Amino acid sequence: MKLSQRGDVDPFIVMDVMEAARKLEAAGRHVIHMEVGQPSTGAPQAALARLGDALQHDAMGYTVGLGLPALRARIARHYGDVYNVDLDPQRVVVTAGASGAFLLAFNALFETGARVGLGYPCYPSYRQILRALDMQPVGIRTTMENRMQPVPADLAGLRLDGLLVASPANPTGTMLDRAAYQALSDTCNASGISLISDEIYHGIEYGSVAETALSVTDDVYVINSFSKYFSMTGWRVGWMVVPKDHIRPIERLAQNMFICPNHAAQRLALASMDARPELDANLAVYKANRDLIIAGLREAGLGHFAPPDGAFYIYTDVSAYTDDALAFTAALLQEAGVAAAPGVDFDPEEGHHWVRFCYARQTSDIIEGIARIKAFMAGRRT
Amino acid sequence: MKLSQRGDVDPFIVMDVMEAARKLEAAGRHVIHMEVGQPSTGAPQAALARLGDALQHDAMGYTVGLGLPALRARIARHYGDVYNVDLDPQRVVVTAGASGAFLLAFNALFETGARVGLGYPCYPSYRQILRALDMQPVGIRTTMENRMQPVPADLAGLRLDGLLVASPANPTGTMLDRAAYQALSDTCNASGISLISDEIYHGIEYGSVAETALSVTDDVYVINSFSKYFSMTGWRVGWMVVPKDHIRPIERLAQNMFICPNHAAQRLALASMDARPELDANLAVYKANRDLIIAGLREAGLGHFAPPDGAFYIYTDVSAYTDDALAFTAALLQEAGVAAAPGVDFDPEEGHHWVRFCYARQTSDIIEGIARIKAFMAGRRT
Repeated sequence: MKLSQRGDVDPFIVMDVMEAARKLEAAGRHVIHMEVGQPSTGAPQAALARLGDALQHDAMGYTVGLGLPALRARIARHYGDVYNVDLDPQRVVVTAGASGAFLLAFNALFETGARVGLGYPCYPSYRQILRALDMQPVGIRTTMENRMQPVPADLAGLRLDGLLVASPANPTGTMLDRAAYQALSDTCNASGISLISDEIYHGIEYGSVAETALSVTDDVYVINSFSKYFSMTGWRVGWMVVPKDHIRPIERLAQNMFICPNHAAQRLALASMDARPELDANLAVYKANRDLIIAGLREAGLGHFAPPDGAFYIYTDVSAYTDDALAFTAALLQEAGVAAAPGVDFDPEEGHHWVRFCYARQTSDIIEGIARIKAFMAGRRT
Repeated sequence: MKLSQRGDVDPFIVMDVMEAARKLEAAGRHVIHMEVGQPSTGAPQAALARLGDALQHDAMGYTVGLGLPALRARIARHYGDVYNVDLDPQRVVVTAGASGAFLLAFNALFETGARVGLGYPCYPSYRQILRALDMQPVGIRTTMENRMQPVPADLAGLRLDGLLVASPANPTGTMLDRAAYQALSDTCNASGISLISDEIYHGIEYGSVAETALSVTDDVYVINSFSKYFSMTGWRVGWMVVPKDHIRPIERLAQNMFICPNHAAQRLALASMDARPELDANLAVYKANRDLIIAGLREAGLGHFAPPDGAFYIYTDVSAYTDDALAFTAALLQEAGVAAAPGVDFDPEEGHHWVRFCYARQTSDIIEGIARIKAFMAGRRT
């Protein structure tokens, strides 16, 4: 059987790094994992206990396509609590992770061939999912001056149908403030560009609380997830907020494409929303790790980055040392036992000059990782 | 924001029936549920106990994109045990339900505009997912003589890029035997048509064991699920078997579109595969229900159907009584308190003459449902 062109997407290169790390470990080497964006913690204990009870007496059949009404209501309340945004629970769509939300959003908003702007560097699957759906990712070159985020002037002449922004962003951890959201939203409105805001790292912030695009407009798709702050990566549950007149079309798509999100994961997510003390303890670890890695990378000669406002990544310029980030991360893994993600995943144009480090693991791992990175760099600095 | 044309799919009408039934129940009426295709049972108890243990000590992070290696190996062994097919575990892809498998398969195999043949009547989401992906569902009219399944002669002149068959089928419960699979596979091979075999009702059979398309060819995508025989609908986990040279392209798509299937659901699925006695007890219930409903519908004057070989549905011709199956099922719900699915979900051309009854619930419910259907029909028979 023939494979399609549209399905011929790029691999997630960080997965190859993971596999190389696994092989080293199998051969007896010790590896510090700074490649994949996932906490080492699981869902909150109190929430797991409540799920355990529910599993005793509930068959966990299909839920309705848009998700458990109680979870949609609880998420809506969260917008009031955290952002002071009054949100109609009907506008909340529970999804099979942020991944499921992207599939719904792109199909609902864009025709075949649609041009969707992405600020490079960005989460690699944006490009690949768009390509698989026969839409066109349009890379927008961001700058350190604009903290690696797109600004309205960048959109001129691109003939975009959509714009996807992320705050805090992966791989940079930089955020859009309210004025930045307002400016992008105004430009999109004026040009008929559909705006999607990926807010999956919300809750993991180191200074000011992240702004939601919903604070400046209702004419936006906002995507979020229980994977990061709520520490539920493998449960594959997230959510999306859509304009009122998009609820029913999204419901039809969701029923057909997914039937429903995982029922048990929805119950766990609902319980997790009331387990903030445990989750905030995770956050304190990320915060300590962030300060350590900012200082450590600077000392290692890798200090050309925009300091992260949120998420648990730092994206640093390695162009002083290499034109091949893939070879650089391979050497870092083989020589120093530190797994990191080469920038080529996040930026097909300039990523060969960049590396992303994830600092979501325990602080002791981060300290050891920094020591290894410094030793590795000591041999490379001129 | 504008909605796309491609995302403008039909609703799942059976969901509207569910909602109407829910409203009746909220108003104090008793409803027998024969509309939705889901067991009233949950996952096997022994498997749930093992999951409960795992949740104590495993953070349930991301798995690799193609699914847990142990689960892929166990599924491959299942093909040896049940079908005497020797299957390379590498060819098994764990998916986010059969729904996730359809999204992967269609994107991997078909270009935009591709023509994919479906034997009408069929599972409605086939059409809607194809439309959302900007591909063309091509309805193939089946006949009672061919037990509502497509045959090679039906494909002539349709210029198909793909053919999707199901056995046991939803909504009819009819099966393809080995000769039928061989004939369809030969025709597809000769014409460059990619064959997909939906086998999600395997294990729920009332006479001979269902054949897998893998018994006649490796040049096929086979889709299966833990939702039906394994009674895990809300866990959203299934699998797909693909040709060897499709593994890596599917892996790249799966990593980007889904990251991975739900981790806990994969663990539960693995444990469920060793809990057959409990699952076979469910099967005994379906078997008793099938015999009751075949007899009951005949006595009610609704005997024009192909008796189901498998699954837990019966699809019956109501054209002697109505040209509007939607109105017919609405009356059946309001007057008799029986929820059933109008054929229009499954067949956009002839479905207004058909109704699907699901008999997956407890036998006492089925007995009561049949009594109500008989009383309802008594007023309509001439």
